[in-house]
Amino acid sequence: MEGVAMNRTQGFGHRYWAIAEGFIPGWSSGPKPQMESHETLCFLNTSDIDANVSVYIYYSEREPSGPYRITVPARRTLHQRINELKYPQPVPRSTDYACFIESDTPIVVQHTRLDSRQAENALISTIAYHSEQI
Amino acid sequence: MEGVAMNRTQGFGHRYWAIAEGFIPGWSSGPKPQMESHETLCFLNTSDIDANVSVYIYYSEREPSGPYRITVPARRTLHQRINELKYPQPVPRSTDYACFIESDTPIVVQHTRLDSRQAENALISTIAYHSEQI
Amino acid sequence: MEGVAMNRTQGFGHRYWAIAEGFIPGWSSGPKPQMESHETLCFLNTSDIDANVSVYIYYSEREPSGPYRITVPARRTLHQRINELKYPQPVPRSTDYACFIESDTPIVVQHTRLDSRQAENALISTIAYHSEQI
Amino acid sequence: MEGVAMNRTQGFGHRYWAIAEGFIPGWSSGPKPQMESHETLCFLNTSDIDANVSVYIYYSEREPSGPYRITVPARRTLHQRINELKYPQPVPRSTDYACFIESDTPIVVQHTRLDSRQAENALISTIAYHSEQI
Repeated sequence: MEGVAMNRTQGFGHRYWAIAEGFIPGWSSGPKPQMESHETLCFLNTSDIDANVSVYIYYSEREPSGPYRITVPARRTLHQRINELKYPQPVPRSTDYACFIESDTPIVVQHTRLDSRQAENALISTIAYHSEQI
Repeated sequence: MEGVAMNRTQGFGHRYWAIAEGFIPGWSSGPKPQMESHETLCFLNTSDIDANVSVYIYYSEREPSGPYRITVPARRTLHQRINELKYPQPVPRSTDYACFIESDTPIVVQHTRLDSRQAENALISTIAYHSEQI
Repeated sequence: MEGVAMNRTQGFGHRYWAIAEGFIPGWSSGPKPQMESHETLCFLNTSDIDANVSVYIYYSEREPSGPYRITVPARRTLHQRINELKYPQPVPRSTDYACFIESDTPIVVQHTRLDSRQAENALISTIAYHSEQI
Repeated sequence: MEGVAMNRTQGFGHRYWAIAEGFIPGWSSGPKPQMESHETLCFLNTSDIDANVSVYIYYSEREPSGPYRITVPARRTLHQRINELKYPQPVPRSTDYACFIESDTPIVVQHTRLDSRQAENALISTIAYHSEQI
Protein backbone atom coordinates (compact mmCIF):
# COMPACT_ATOMS: atom_id res chain seq x y z
CA MET A 1 0.00 0.00 0.00
CA GLU A 2 1.42 3.33 -1.04
CA GLY A 3 0.72 6.88 0.05
CA VAL A 4 0.82 9.18 3.01
CA ALA A 5 -1.16 6.90 5.28
CA MET A 6 1.70 4.45 5.25
CA ASN A 7 4.40 6.92 6.18
CA ARG A 8 2.88 8.58 9.20
CA THR A 9 4.22 7.46 12.55
CA GLN A 10 2.57 10.12 14.67
CA GLY A 11 -1.00 9.16 13.94
CA PHE A 12 -4.04 11.25 13.11
CA GLY A 13 -6.47 12.55 15.66
CA HIS A 14 -6.63 13.79 19.21
CA ARG A 15 -5.54 12.32 22.55
CA TYR A 16 -8.56 13.40 24.66
CA TRP A 17 -12.15 12.54 23.86
CA ALA A 18 -15.56 12.48 25.54
CA ILE A 19 -19.12 11.24 25.02
CA ALA A 20 -21.84 12.74 27.25
CA GLU A 21 -24.66 10.40 26.16
CA GLY A 22 -24.29 6.85 27.34
CA PHE A 23 -27.04 4.34 28.00
CA ILE A 24 -27.04 0.61 27.34
CA PRO A 25 -30.66 -0.40 26.74
CA GLY A 26 -31.81 -2.95 29.27
CA TRP A 27 -33.30 -5.43 26.86
CA SER A 28 -33.16 -6.56 23.23
CA SER A 29 -35.11 -8.24 20.48
CA GLY A 30 -33.80 -10.02 17.43
CA PRO A 31 -30.86 -12.41 16.94
CA LYS A 32 -27.68 -12.08 19.04
CA PRO A 33 -25.02 -10.86 18.86
CA GLN A 34 -25.83 -8.61 15.88
CA MET A 35 -29.16 -7.32 17.12
CA GLU A 36 -28.41 -7.24 20.83
CA SER A 37 -28.80 -3.72 22.22
CA HIS A 38 -25.31 -2.33 22.70
CA GLU A 39 -23.03 0.68 22.70
CA THR A 40 -19.68 0.67 20.97
CA LEU A 41 -16.58 2.85 21.16
CA CYS A 42 -14.92 2.78 17.75
CA PHE A 43 -11.22 3.61 17.76
CA LEU A 44 -8.97 4.27 14.75
CA ASN A 45 -5.20 4.26 15.21
CA THR A 46 -3.48 5.17 11.92
CA SER A 47 -0.05 5.45 13.55
CA ASP A 48 2.78 2.95 13.52
CA ILE A 49 2.76 2.46 17.28
CA ASP A 50 0.13 0.87 19.52
CA ALA A 51 -2.19 3.28 21.33
CA ASN A 52 -2.66 2.73 25.06
CA VAL A 53 -6.16 3.97 25.82
CA SER A 54 -7.80 4.60 29.22
CA VAL A 55 -11.59 4.94 29.44
CA TYR A 56 -13.28 6.50 32.49
CA ILE A 57 -17.03 6.01 33.06
CA TYR A 58 -18.98 8.81 34.75
CA TYR A 59 -22.35 8.30 36.41
CA SER A 60 -25.10 10.56 37.69
CA GLU A 61 -25.26 9.24 41.21
CA ARG A 62 -21.84 7.85 42.13
CA GLU A 63 -18.12 8.38 41.66
CA PRO A 64 -16.59 7.59 38.26
CA SER A 65 -14.93 4.23 37.62
CA GLY A 66 -11.85 3.35 35.66
CA PRO A 67 -9.50 3.27 34.01
CA TYR A 68 -10.66 0.59 31.63
CA ARG A 69 -7.47 -0.16 29.71
CA ILE A 70 -7.65 -0.89 26.00
CA THR A 71 -4.88 -1.32 23.44
CA VAL A 72 -5.56 -0.25 19.87
CA PRO A 73 -2.80 -1.81 17.78
CA ALA A 74 -0.81 0.18 15.23
CA ARG A 75 -2.64 0.61 11.89
CA ARG A 76 -5.83 -0.96 13.22
CA THR A 77 -9.38 -0.08 14.15
CA LEU A 78 -11.00 -1.52 17.28
CA HIS A 79 -14.76 -1.51 17.84
CA GLN A 80 -15.12 -2.09 21.57
CA ARG A 81 -18.59 -2.93 22.87
CA ILE A 82 -19.05 -1.19 26.20
CA ASN A 83 -21.31 -4.09 27.19
CA GLU A 84 -18.23 -6.29 27.25
CA LEU A 85 -15.99 -4.18 29.50
CA LYS A 86 -15.33 -6.15 32.68
CA TYR A 87 -12.44 -4.62 34.66
CA PRO A 88 -12.51 -2.84 37.03
CA GLN A 89 -16.29 -3.49 36.81
CA PRO A 90 -19.03 -3.97 34.17
CA VAL A 91 -21.07 -0.94 33.09
CA PRO A 92 -24.64 -1.41 34.38
CA ARG A 93 -27.60 -1.58 31.95
CA SER A 94 -30.45 0.95 31.88
CA THR A 95 -28.23 3.50 33.63
CA ASP A 96 -27.21 6.97 32.45
CA TYR A 97 -23.47 7.30 32.01
CA ALA A 98 -20.83 9.26 30.09
CA CYS A 99 -17.22 8.60 29.23
CA PHE A 100 -13.88 10.34 29.05
CA ILE A 101 -11.11 8.79 26.99
CA GLU A 102 -7.39 9.45 26.93
CA SER A 103 -4.77 7.92 24.67
CA ASP A 104 -1.00 8.19 24.71
CA THR A 105 -0.98 8.73 20.93
CA PRO A 106 -3.51 10.52 18.68
CA ILE A 107 -6.53 8.44 17.70
CA VAL A 108 -10.07 9.01 16.36
CA VAL A 109 -13.09 8.00 18.49
CA GLN A 110 -16.70 7.49 17.40
CA HIS A 111 -19.62 6.26 19.51
CA THR A 112 -22.54 4.14 18.30
CA ARG A 113 -25.64 2.67 19.92
CA LEU A 114 -27.90 -0.03 18.56
CA ASP A 115 -31.21 -0.03 20.41
CA SER A 116 -33.28 -3.14 19.72
CA ARG A 117 -35.74 -2.82 22.58
CA GLN A 118 -38.48 -2.73 19.98
CA ALA A 119 -38.93 -5.08 17.04
CA GLU A 120 -36.99 -2.84 14.65
CA ASN A 121 -33.61 -1.49 15.69
CA ALA A 122 -32.69 2.18 16.02
CA LEU A 123 -29.16 3.49 15.54
CA ILE A 124 -27.22 6.56 16.62
CA SER A 125 -23.60 7.42 15.91
CA THR A 126 -21.48 10.50 16.38
CA ILE A 127 -17.83 11.49 16.31
CA ALA A 128 -16.91 12.03 19.98
CA TYR A 129 -16.07 15.47 21.38
CA HIS A 130 -12.36 16.16 21.19
CA SER A 131 -10.05 18.85 22.42
CA GLU A 132 -6.32 19.38 22.83
CA GLN A 133 -6.97 21.20 26.09
CA ILE A 134 -7.03 19.36 29.37
CA MET B 1 -9.40 5.47 40.61
CA GLU B 2 -6.05 6.49 39.24
CA GLY B 3 -5.04 8.53 36.25
CA VAL B 4 -5.36 11.95 34.72
CA ALA B 5 -9.13 12.11 34.99
CA MET B 6 -8.83 12.17 38.74
CA ASN B 7 -6.32 15.00 38.92
CA ARG B 8 -7.99 17.55 36.72
CA THR B 9 -9.82 20.36 38.50
CA GLN B 10 -10.44 22.53 35.50
CA GLY B 11 -12.66 20.14 33.62
CA PHE B 12 -12.73 19.12 29.99
CA GLY B 13 -14.84 20.78 27.35
CA HIS B 14 -16.24 24.16 26.40
CA ARG B 15 -18.35 26.72 28.23
CA TYR B 16 -20.68 27.73 25.35
CA TRP B 17 -22.81 25.28 23.38
CA ALA B 18 -25.79 25.31 21.02
CA ILE B 19 -28.28 22.98 19.34
CA ALA B 20 -30.24 24.34 16.37
CA GLU B 21 -32.61 21.37 15.98
CA GLY B 22 -35.15 21.05 18.77
CA PHE B 23 -38.59 19.47 18.57
CA ILE B 24 -40.38 17.40 21.18
CA PRO B 25 -42.73 15.06 19.31
CA GLY B 26 -46.33 15.64 20.31
CA TRP B 27 -47.26 12.05 20.96
CA SER B 28 -45.78 8.67 21.82
CA SER B 29 -46.32 4.94 21.56
CA GLY B 30 -44.87 2.22 23.75
CA PRO B 31 -44.28 2.01 27.50
CA LYS B 32 -43.44 5.11 29.54
CA PRO B 33 -41.08 6.52 30.60
CA GLN B 34 -38.53 4.67 28.43
CA MET B 35 -40.41 4.91 25.14
CA GLU B 36 -42.05 8.29 25.66
CA SER B 37 -41.01 10.71 22.92
CA HIS B 38 -38.46 13.06 24.44
CA GLU B 39 -35.38 15.19 23.95
CA THR B 40 -32.46 15.09 26.35
CA LEU B 41 -29.49 17.36 27.01
CA CYS B 42 -26.63 15.18 28.22
CA PHE B 43 -24.00 16.99 30.28
CA LEU B 44 -20.59 15.68 31.38
CA ASN B 45 -18.68 17.52 34.07
CA THR B 46 -15.27 15.88 34.64
CA SER B 47 -14.05 18.68 36.90
CA ASP B 48 -13.83 18.75 40.68
CA ILE B 49 -16.30 21.64 41.01
CA ASP B 50 -20.01 21.78 40.29
CA ALA B 51 -20.99 23.34 36.95
CA ASN B 52 -23.69 26.00 37.03
CA VAL B 53 -25.45 25.75 33.69
CA SER B 54 -27.96 28.15 32.10
CA VAL B 55 -30.09 26.99 29.17
CA TYR B 56 -31.90 29.45 26.89
CA ILE B 57 -34.67 28.26 24.58
CA TYR B 58 -35.13 30.03 21.23
CA TYR B 59 -38.34 29.85 19.20
CA SER B 60 -39.34 30.73 15.66
CA GLU B 61 -42.21 33.04 16.51
CA ARG B 62 -41.54 34.57 19.92
CA GLU B 63 -38.81 35.87 22.20
CA PRO B 64 -36.46 33.36 23.83
CA SER B 65 -37.10 32.12 27.34
CA GLY B 66 -34.70 31.37 30.16
CA PRO B 67 -32.44 30.89 31.89
CA TYR B 68 -33.32 27.37 32.90
CA ARG B 69 -30.82 26.76 35.70
CA ILE B 70 -29.23 23.31 36.04
CA THR B 71 -26.42 22.14 38.30
CA VAL B 72 -24.17 19.37 37.03
CA PRO B 73 -22.27 18.09 40.07
CA ALA B 74 -18.51 17.60 40.07
CA ARG B 75 -17.42 14.31 38.44
CA ARG B 76 -20.94 13.51 37.27
CA THR B 77 -23.03 13.22 34.14
CA LEU B 78 -26.58 14.57 34.03
CA HIS B 79 -29.08 13.56 31.34
CA GLN B 80 -31.77 16.25 31.53
CA ARG B 81 -35.00 15.60 29.64
CA ILE B 82 -36.15 18.87 28.12
CA ASN B 83 -39.71 17.61 28.55
CA GLU B 84 -39.24 17.97 32.29
CA LEU B 85 -38.00 21.56 32.43
CA LYS B 86 -40.58 23.62 34.31
CA TYR B 87 -39.13 27.03 35.34
CA PRO B 88 -39.47 29.67 34.04
CA GLN B 89 -41.91 27.73 31.80
CA PRO B 90 -42.30 24.29 30.16
CA VAL B 91 -41.09 23.85 26.57
CA PRO B 92 -44.16 23.30 24.37
CA ARG B 93 -44.61 20.06 22.36
CA SER B 94 -44.75 19.91 18.56
CA THR B 95 -42.97 23.28 18.36
CA ASP B 96 -39.69 24.14 16.64
CA TYR B 97 -37.07 25.39 19.07
CA ALA B 98 -33.30 25.65 19.54
CA CYS B 99 -31.12 26.10 22.59
CA PHE B 100 -28.06 27.97 23.74
CA ILE B 101 -26.16 26.73 26.79
CA GLU B 102 -23.59 28.43 28.97
CA SER B 103 -21.69 26.98 31.90
CA ASP B 104 -19.35 28.62 34.39
CA THR B 105 -16.87 25.74 33.98
CA PRO B 106 -16.01 23.62 30.91
CA ILE B 107 -18.43 20.77 30.20
CA VAL B 108 -19.39 18.51 27.28
CA VAL B 109 -22.95 18.65 25.85
CA GLN B 110 -24.72 16.12 23.64
CA HIS B 111 -28.33 16.20 22.43
CA THR B 112 -30.57 13.17 21.84
CA ARG B 113 -34.15 12.69 20.66
CA LEU B 114 -36.26 9.57 20.94
CA ASP B 115 -39.24 9.78 18.60
CA SER B 116 -41.86 7.14 19.31
CA ARG B 117 -44.71 8.65 17.33
CA GLN B 118 -44.78 5.46 15.31
CA ALA B 119 -44.73 1.90 16.62
CA GLU B 120 -40.95 1.63 16.39
CA ASN B 121 -38.81 4.36 17.87
CA ALA B 122 -36.31 6.51 15.96
CA LEU B 123 -33.22 8.04 17.56
CA ILE B 124 -30.93 10.95 16.79
CA SER B 125 -27.93 12.14 18.76
CA THR B 126 -25.15 14.63 18.12
CA ILE B 127 -22.42 16.42 20.03
CA ALA B 128 -23.65 20.01 20.32
CA TYR B 129 -21.98 22.91 18.52
CA HIS B 130 -19.30 24.51 20.67
CA SER B 131 -17.09 27.55 20.43
CA GLU B 132 -14.85 29.57 22.70
CA GLN B 133 -16.03 32.72 21.00
CA ILE B 134 -19.00 34.65 22.28
CA MET C 1 -34.91 37.18 30.49
CA GLU C 2 -31.57 37.85 32.11
CA GLY C 3 -28.07 36.64 31.40
CA VAL C 4 -25.38 36.66 28.77
CA ALA C 5 -27.61 35.46 25.97
CA MET C 6 -29.54 38.70 26.18
CA ASN C 7 -26.54 40.98 25.93
CA ARG C 8 -24.80 39.56 22.93
CA THR C 9 -25.21 41.45 19.69
CA GLN C 10 -22.60 39.61 17.68
CA GLY C 11 -24.21 36.22 17.77
CA PHE C 12 -22.79 32.79 18.40
CA GLY C 13 -21.55 30.49 15.70
CA HIS C 14 -19.85 30.54 12.34
CA ARG C 15 -20.63 32.25 9.04
CA TYR C 16 -19.76 29.37 6.66
CA TRP C 17 -21.30 25.92 6.83
CA ALA C 18 -21.68 22.82 4.68
CA ILE C 19 -23.54 19.51 4.53
CA ALA C 20 -22.20 16.84 2.15
CA GLU C 21 -25.09 14.38 2.53
CA GLY C 22 -28.34 15.53 0.98
CA PHE C 23 -31.14 13.37 -0.36
CA ILE C 24 -34.88 13.96 -0.16
CA PRO C 25 -36.52 10.54 -0.21
CA GLY C 26 -38.86 10.17 -3.16
CA TRP C 27 -41.87 8.88 -1.30
CA SER C 28 -43.45 8.78 2.14
CA SER C 29 -45.79 6.84 4.36
CA GLY C 30 -47.76 8.09 7.32
CA PRO C 31 -49.67 11.32 7.94
CA LYS C 32 -48.54 14.60 6.36
CA PRO C 33 -46.95 16.98 7.07
CA GLN C 34 -45.31 15.44 10.15
CA MET C 35 -44.41 12.09 8.63
CA GLU C 36 -43.67 13.26 5.09
CA SER C 37 -40.10 12.40 4.11
CA HIS C 38 -38.13 15.62 4.30
CA GLU C 39 -34.82 17.30 4.99
CA THR C 40 -34.54 20.38 7.16
CA LEU C 41 -31.87 23.03 7.68
CA CYS C 42 -32.17 24.26 11.27
CA PHE C 43 -30.75 27.73 11.88
CA LEU C 44 -30.17 29.43 15.23
CA ASN C 45 -29.49 33.17 15.33
CA THR C 46 -28.80 34.29 18.90
CA SER C 47 -27.74 37.79 17.83
CA ASP C 48 -29.72 41.00 17.98
CA ILE C 49 -29.66 41.50 14.21
CA ASP C 50 -31.32 39.50 11.44
CA ALA C 51 -29.10 37.01 9.62
CA ASN C 52 -29.17 37.10 5.83
CA VAL C 53 -28.43 33.55 4.73
CA SER C 54 -27.59 32.23 1.24
CA VAL C 55 -27.85 28.51 0.52
CA TYR C 56 -26.17 26.94 -2.53
CA ILE C 57 -27.17 23.46 -3.69
CA TYR C 58 -24.49 21.25 -5.28
CA TYR C 59 -25.31 18.25 -7.47
CA SER C 60 -23.37 15.30 -8.83
CA GLU C 61 -24.18 15.82 -12.48
CA ARG C 62 -24.85 19.51 -13.07
CA GLU C 63 -23.79 22.98 -12.00
CA PRO C 64 -24.81 24.22 -8.54
CA SER C 65 -27.90 26.36 -8.09
CA GLY C 66 -28.54 29.30 -5.82
CA PRO C 67 -28.48 31.41 -3.88
CA TYR C 68 -31.62 30.46 -2.01
CA ARG C 69 -32.12 33.50 0.22
CA ILE C 70 -33.39 33.00 3.76
CA THR C 71 -33.72 35.49 6.61
CA VAL C 72 -33.29 34.19 10.15
CA PRO C 73 -34.68 36.91 12.41
CA ALA C 74 -32.76 38.19 15.44
CA ARG C 75 -33.11 35.94 18.51
CA ARG C 76 -34.97 33.25 16.56
CA THR C 77 -34.57 29.74 15.25
CA LEU C 78 -35.79 28.80 11.77
CA HIS C 79 -36.31 25.19 10.68
CA GLN C 80 -36.41 25.38 6.89
CA ARG C 81 -37.60 22.31 5.01
CA ILE C 82 -35.49 21.95 1.89
CA ASN C 83 -38.55 20.37 0.25
CA GLU C 84 -40.20 23.78 0.37
CA LEU C 85 -37.45 25.87 -1.28
CA LYS C 86 -38.81 27.25 -4.55
CA TYR C 87 -36.58 30.03 -5.89
CA PRO C 88 -34.51 29.93 -8.01
CA GLN C 89 -35.78 26.32 -8.41
CA PRO C 90 -37.08 23.42 -6.28
CA VAL C 91 -34.60 20.76 -5.14
CA PRO C 92 -35.46 17.51 -6.96
CA ARG C 93 -36.45 14.36 -5.02
CA SER C 94 -34.45 11.11 -5.05
CA THR C 95 -31.36 13.04 -6.15
CA ASP C 96 -27.97 13.28 -4.43
CA TYR C 97 -27.10 16.81 -3.43
CA ALA C 98 -25.03 18.78 -0.92
CA CYS C 99 -25.22 22.34 0.35
CA PHE C 100 -23.01 25.25 1.22
CA ILE C 101 -24.35 27.99 3.46
CA GLU C 102 -23.12 31.50 4.13
CA SER C 103 -24.51 34.06 6.53
CA ASP C 104 -23.62 37.71 7.07
CA THR C 105 -23.62 37.17 10.84
CA PRO C 106 -22.61 34.12 12.91
CA ILE C 107 -25.27 31.40 13.19
CA VAL C 108 -25.49 27.70 14.06
CA VAL C 109 -26.65 25.19 11.43
CA GLN C 110 -27.90 21.63 11.91
CA HIS C 111 -29.28 19.25 9.28
CA THR C 112 -31.99 16.62 9.80
CA ARG C 113 -33.70 14.06 7.57
CA LEU C 114 -36.89 12.17 8.28
CA ASP C 115 -37.17 9.17 5.98
CA SER C 116 -40.63 7.62 5.98
CA ARG C 117 -40.30 5.50 2.88
CA GLN C 118 -41.04 2.49 5.03
CA ALA C 119 -43.81 2.12 7.58
CA GLU C 120 -41.65 3.33 10.46
CA ASN C 121 -39.66 6.51 10.09
CA ALA C 122 -35.86 6.80 10.34
CA LEU C 123 -34.09 9.96 11.47
CA ILE C 124 -30.62 11.43 11.05
CA SER C 125 -29.30 14.73 12.38
CA THR C 126 -25.88 16.31 12.59
CA ILE C 127 -24.34 19.68 13.30
CA ALA C 128 -23.13 20.92 9.91
CA TYR C 129 -19.44 21.29 9.06
CA HIS C 130 -18.18 24.77 9.86
CA SER C 131 -14.99 26.69 9.30
CA GLU C 132 -13.83 30.28 9.48
CA GLN C 133 -11.70 29.71 6.41
CA ILE C 134 -13.03 30.37 2.97
CA MET D 1 -25.44 31.87 -10.09
CA GLU D 2 -24.10 34.80 -8.17
CA GLY D 3 -22.36 35.09 -4.84
CA VAL D 4 -19.29 33.99 -2.98
CA ALA D 5 -19.72 30.32 -3.75
CA MET D 6 -19.04 31.04 -7.39
CA ASN D 7 -15.82 32.97 -6.85
CA ARG D 8 -13.94 30.62 -4.61
CA THR D 9 -11.22 28.58 -6.26
CA GLN D 10 -9.62 27.20 -3.13
CA GLY D 11 -12.57 25.24 -1.91
CA PHE D 12 -14.10 24.90 1.54
CA GLY D 13 -13.19 22.23 4.00
CA HIS D 14 -10.26 20.17 5.15
CA ARG D 15 -7.84 17.85 3.35
CA TYR D 16 -7.65 15.04 5.97
CA TRP D 17 -10.66 13.16 7.31
CA ALA D 18 -11.45 9.97 9.20
CA ILE D 19 -14.38 7.76 10.20
CA ALA D 20 -13.80 5.25 13.01
CA GLU D 21 -17.12 3.41 12.69
CA GLY D 22 -17.48 1.33 9.56
CA PHE D 23 -19.59 -1.77 9.06
CA ILE D 24 -21.53 -2.84 5.99
CA PRO D 25 -24.47 -4.93 7.20
CA GLY D 26 -24.34 -8.42 5.79
CA TRP D 27 -27.90 -8.62 4.57
CA SER D 28 -30.84 -6.44 3.54
CA SER D 29 -34.58 -6.34 3.26
CA GLY D 30 -36.68 -4.16 1.00
CA PRO D 31 -36.27 -3.10 -2.64
CA LYS D 32 -32.80 -2.59 -4.15
CA PRO D 33 -30.89 -0.41 -4.66
CA GLN D 34 -32.60 2.13 -2.39
CA MET D 35 -33.16 -0.12 0.60
CA GLU D 36 -30.06 -2.27 0.27
CA SER D 37 -27.90 -2.03 3.40
CA HIS D 38 -24.99 0.22 2.55
CA GLU D 39 -22.48 2.80 3.72
CA THR D 40 -21.76 5.94 1.78
CA LEU D 41 -18.97 8.52 1.83
CA CYS D 42 -20.46 11.85 0.78
CA PHE D 43 -17.97 14.34 -0.63
CA LEU D 44 -18.54 18.03 -1.39
CA ASN D 45 -16.03 19.91 -3.54
CA THR D 46 -17.00 23.57 -3.79
CA SER D 47 -13.75 24.54 -5.50
CA ASP D 48 -13.11 25.21 -9.17
CA ILE D 49 -10.65 22.33 -9.51
CA ASP D 50 -11.20 18.58 -9.31
CA ALA D 51 -10.32 16.94 -6.00
CA ASN D 52 -8.15 13.81 -6.16
CA VAL D 53 -9.16 11.75 -3.14
CA SER D 54 -7.45 8.69 -1.66
CA VAL D 55 -9.36 6.46 0.77
CA TYR D 56 -7.56 3.96 3.06
CA ILE D 57 -9.52 1.20 4.79
CA TYR D 58 -8.34 0.04 8.22
CA TYR D 59 -9.33 -3.30 9.72
CA SER D 60 -9.12 -4.88 13.17
CA GLU D 61 -7.23 -7.99 12.19
CA ARG D 62 -5.14 -7.22 9.13
CA GLU D 63 -3.09 -4.51 7.45
CA PRO D 64 -4.94 -1.55 5.89
CA SER D 65 -5.75 -1.52 2.18
CA GLY D 66 -5.70 1.28 -0.33
CA PRO D 67 -5.54 3.79 -1.75
CA TYR D 68 -8.97 3.68 -3.31
CA ARG D 69 -8.77 6.58 -5.77
CA ILE D 70 -11.82 8.78 -6.29
CA THR D 71 -12.19 12.02 -8.25
CA VAL D 72 -14.71 14.56 -7.00
CA PRO D 73 -15.21 17.01 -9.87
CA ALA D 74 -15.07 20.77 -9.38
CA ARG D 75 -18.34 22.22 -8.02
CA ARG D 76 -19.87 18.80 -7.48
CA THR D 77 -20.94 16.43 -4.74
CA LEU D 78 -20.23 12.71 -4.98
CA HIS D 79 -22.00 10.13 -2.82
CA GLN D 80 -19.78 7.05 -3.07
CA ARG D 81 -21.20 3.78 -1.76
CA ILE D 82 -18.41 1.88 -0.03
CA ASN D 83 -20.17 -1.31 -1.12
CA GLU D 84 -19.21 -0.47 -4.69
CA LEU D 85 -15.48 0.12 -4.22
CA LYS D 86 -13.61 -2.54 -6.19
CA TYR D 87 -9.92 -1.61 -6.57
CA PRO D 88 -7.57 -2.59 -5.03
CA GLN D 89 -10.17 -4.90 -3.42
CA PRO D 90 -13.82 -4.85 -2.28
CA VAL D 91 -14.58 -4.03 1.36
CA PRO D 92 -15.93 -7.19 3.02
CA ARG D 93 -19.44 -7.28 4.54
CA SER D 94 -20.15 -7.86 8.24
CA THR D 95 -16.61 -6.75 9.09
CA ASP D 96 -15.48 -3.91 11.36
CA TYR D 97 -13.50 -1.28 9.50
CA ALA D 98 -12.57 2.41 9.60
CA CYS D 99 -11.34 4.83 6.98
CA PHE D 100 -8.84 7.61 6.52
CA ILE D 101 -9.31 10.04 3.64
CA GLU D 102 -6.93 12.52 2.08
CA SER D 103 -7.61 14.99 -0.70
CA ASP D 104 -5.28 17.29 -2.62
CA THR D 105 -7.75 20.17 -2.21
CA PRO D 106 -10.11 21.01 0.68
CA ILE D 107 -13.39 19.08 0.69
CA VAL D 108 -16.17 18.20 3.14
CA VAL D 109 -16.81 14.53 4.05
CA GLN D 110 -19.88 12.99 5.67
CA HIS D 111 -20.56 9.31 6.34
CA THR D 112 -23.96 7.59 6.25
CA ARG D 113 -25.18 4.04 6.82
CA LEU D 114 -28.54 2.57 5.88
CA ASP D 115 -29.14 -0.65 7.77
CA SER D 116 -32.05 -2.63 6.39
CA ARG D 117 -31.34 -5.95 8.08
CA GLN D 118 -34.74 -5.69 9.68
CA ALA D 119 -38.01 -4.84 7.98
CA GLU D 120 -37.70 -1.11 8.72
CA ASN D 121 -34.47 0.67 7.89
CA ALA D 122 -32.24 2.49 10.40
CA LEU D 123 -30.03 5.41 9.45
CA ILE D 124 -26.92 7.03 10.89
CA SER D 125 -24.97 9.99 9.53
CA THR D 126 -22.20 12.17 10.84
CA ILE D 127 -19.74 14.73 9.59
CA ALA D 128 -16.38 12.93 9.54
CA TYR D 129 -13.54 13.84 11.91
CA HIS D 130 -11.23 16.41 10.37
CA SER D 131 -7.95 17.99 11.30
CA GLU D 132 -5.29 20.09 9.65
CA GLN D 133 -2.65 18.15 11.50
CA ILE D 134 -1.06 15.09 10.03
